[in-house]
Amino acid sequence: MKTTNVKAFGTKAADAPLNEMTIDRREVTPKDLEIAILYCGVCHSDLHFAKNDWGMTSYPVVPGHEIVGRVTQVGSEISRYKVGDVVAVGCLVDSCRTCNSCEQDLEQYCLNGWTGTYGGYDKHLDQPTHGGYSQKIVVDEYFVLKVPANLDLAAVAPLLCAGITTWSPLRHWNVSKGSKVAVVGLGGLGHMAIKFAKALGAEVTLFSRSTNKEKDALDLGADAVVISTDATQMASVLGKFDVIIDTVPYIHDVNPYVNTLAISGTLVLVGYLGPIDPFLNSVPMIMGRRSVAASLIGGIAETQEMLDFCGENNIVSEIEMIKMQDINEAYERMLKSDVRYRFVIDMASLK
Amino acid sequence: MKTTNVKAFGTKAADAPLNEMTIDRREVTPKDLEIAILYCGVCHSDLHFAKNDWGMTSYPVVPGHEIVGRVTQVGSEISRYKVGDVVAVGCLVDSCRTCNSCEQDLEQYCLNGWTGTYGGYDKHLDQPTHGGYSQKIVVDEYFVLKVPANLDLAAVAPLLCAGITTWSPLRHWNVSKGSKVAVVGLGGLGHMAIKFAKALGAEVTLFSRSTNKEKDALDLGADAVVISTDATQMASVLGKFDVIIDTVPYIHDVNPYVNTLAISGTLVLVGYLGPIDPFLNSVPMIMGRRSVAASLIGGIAETQEMLDFCGENNIVSEIEMIKMQDINEAYERMLKSDVRYRFVIDMASLK
Repeated sequence: MKTTNVKAFGTKAADAPLNEMTIDRREVTPKDLEIAILYCGVCHSDLHFAKNDWGMTSYPVVPGHEIVGRVTQVGSEISRYKVGDVVAVGCLVDSCRTCNSCEQDLEQYCLNGWTGTYGGYDKHLDQPTHGGYSQKIVVDEYFVLKVPANLDLAAVAPLLCAGITTWSPLRHWNVSKGSKVAVVGLGGLGHMAIKFAKALGAEVTLFSRSTNKEKDALDLGADAVVISTDATQMASVLGKFDVIIDTVPYIHDVNPYVNTLAISGTLVLVGYLGPIDPFLNSVPMIMGRRSVAASLIGGIAETQEMLDFCGENNIVSEIEMIKMQDINEAYERMLKSDVRYRFVIDMASLK
Repeated sequence: MKTTNVKAFGTKAADAPLNEMTIDRREVTPKDLEIAILYCGVCHSDLHFAKNDWGMTSYPVVPGHEIVGRVTQVGSEISRYKVGDVVAVGCLVDSCRTCNSCEQDLEQYCLNGWTGTYGGYDKHLDQPTHGGYSQKIVVDEYFVLKVPANLDLAAVAPLLCAGITTWSPLRHWNVSKGSKVAVVGLGGLGHMAIKFAKALGAEVTLFSRSTNKEKDALDLGADAVVISTDATQMASVLGKFDVIIDTVPYIHDVNPYVNTLAISGTLVLVGYLGPIDPFLNSVPMIMGRRSVAASLIGGIAETQEMLDFCGENNIVSEIEMIKMQDINEAYERMLKSDVRYRFVIDMASLK
């Protein structure tokens, strides 16, 4: 298959900084779109994957799965898009499309394994996929989203991962007008969870360890902030929440939050992969039919639904724009939680 | 308040066997029914409570919350029942009836604390409630159930706890025709879970540690039995079940069962109170939107729904009838899981 050379930013080893490199993009097949990338959000997964924190990285890596761009070429069988359209690509660029999950628009749970936007397997080129830290990407139109015209394009980028990751559980667990929702942690995911829950009509509380995020949380739409290290404040919300979106990305005790679930409530982990340590206590669960669940990004139809909702409600992420060349410093700052609330790369800087 | 002396069986200390004793029953208030007890099922909770295994028992204790009897007296404001009716009483004899849970027919999650049939607090007499190991009981009609006329009365008794404990989560998590349900453990709860799930139209699998329950499980309606200690058999059901009812009453690893949940599936603990040890692993949960939940008995309306369903579908428990005087030996046998599948006391033996 013919390929095109494209400028990108990536790394060839876990301990090497990201640097400019050249990658191959496949030729545009009949079902593909070629997209010139305008903006790419910077997700914690990018950093973990680049540094091989999950032990599954093969190098070189070009991260990035919060992509907004403009269509520059369309395959011969494309009807939904035309050259010049503003489009987006998230965490998925392929799936089997025939399994039970795919048939239910749950491509993120494809039983035959979905293809990640980076670090996945590109069956056309027989090599790893490369992500959005690059000038162009070629994607099957099925996995391409339409971007509402009224939104700030740079601030749309983080919706493709941070956004859908919180939108999907809010919808699956039926958050609507009058729901009582809590969000644990105010970062890239948490700030989107607050915006979405509020826009869906919920009463929204942020759980935070520190007092210095209170003003931001209220500005983002939260009705209240509960400092999770304050026993009195925690006691004041026992049994309150229908749904808790727990965005904390590291090991932490979820029991104090389970105790704040209402009868039949559900706590959803969206940021943490690993053992639930300390032990989850089943007593408050059985005494109130409470659930602990987890959720991964969202399907393609659901991602479009979210983008359309954002268009109707003027919702975007809070971002700090950076140049491509600043990515290594941005990673350092992310490790210190020094970002409000998502870095977005202006891809014009890679020209 | 006037009281009536009633013959009962109970214990005055954790290390004493159960023996005949006399207890007080309150006079019949305008909203009460007096019920002559015909049969009382023997629940594991009876044993734990009598022996103070949960550290919350005050003595004397008269256990028993799977009660079937006949109305012998009705209060002045009773309209739903008359003398001679066959009725049942389960785990609850009172709740606040005004909180959010009670208003949703979830008296088992009453936010002001429901009153257990034994070991609860009788506000009329200002003393602990006493259960069904006795000749008579006086109960507010709100907490009394109607028993379908076509069912074997002795075999109805265990429906009031073992039955509703498995019925409630099957209904809450929408088990219906075509659902794939697994049941962990074949005891009093497990055998009812199989019968109910099958009658609701599900495909039913039993997880068991031993091969000697296979024939029973199939006779009860299970479509398959998976030996949980057999890695090959466990691998054959990965990702299969929409709902798992886990009836195991002691500490155990739930991770192997979580791995057998389908996308968006839920495992419901109904028998175990305590730390979920070893640690629950969030990875298979997040990769398939899987939930771990827990559930406690059921509400009054739901219990009536279950009894009506049993009447329509000719469902009762599998029982072994005993005399009241055999209760201590029955407890010994229960500790060895030597019962298929529920002891029921013929209360005529206490006369």
